[in-house]
Amino acid sequence: METETRQPQPYRNPLAEPNWSGAEKEIARKVFQSALEKELQDTVNAARQKMAKITRASELWDLEDWLGRQRRQIDEKYDYRYSVLLMVFVRLIAEGRLSESDLDGLHSDKIDYIRRILSFAKR
Amino acid sequence: METETRQPQPYRNPLAEPNWSGAEKEIARKVFQSALEKELQDTVNAARQKMAKITRASELWDLEDWLGRQRRQIDEKYDYRYSVLLMVFVRLIAEGRLSESDLDGLHSDKIDYIRRILSFAKR
Repeated sequence: METETRQPQPYRNPLAEPNWSGAEKEIARKVFQSALEKELQDTVNAARQKMAKITRASELWDLEDWLGRQRRQIDEKYDYRYSVLLMVFVRLIAEGRLSESDLDGLHSDKIDYIRRILSFAKR
Repeated sequence: METETRQPQPYRNPLAEPNWSGAEKEIARKVFQSALEKELQDTVNAARQKMAKITRASELWDLEDWLGRQRRQIDEKYDYRYSVLLMVFVRLIAEGRLSESDLDGLHSDKIDYIRRILSFAKR
């Protein structure tokens, strides 16, 4: 377990607001960015397929609605605050957008935390 | 000039709130509907072209914004209330989406009104 130095408090759950070392931040940023870019590209591809099927204008407005929902969903999902980042990774793993091995190099406490949540979610 | 029977008033400008005969309404509805469908189809085609050029997700959100603007613009423009319909036709003619001959069969007062506005707009 890492030592919390920035916010001295009588008691803190280190997993609720984990510390991130510089090396961990680098890994996290890279994994996060790559998952985001992949999801954006998937959205472009899905939008292309939807557009190709459109014959009537009303379907164009359906596409607009869909794009808006995708945009909001992606904005919400990809939240790079360290206080929520582990939950973002949990979600991305649960959705098959990340695998645990992508997170190699993060402190074992973080990995354990993610595993615990995922095993709970599976029950 | 047609006789106003529905709303007896001491004085009315017949061109501000023109009467529409059944035959005129039929023409107006057909012309309006056809222009609307054409514009919607143009929008589908333009959206397709924009989509084909998209390589990055940020451009996808630009397309979403564009679609939203198009939708609002079309909703506002195609207002089938008889109190504003002549101005709708003026706008569609000015935009090259209708020609005066499409309105053949409307009362000459209406055509004259439209011409007057258009000639004023050209000055």
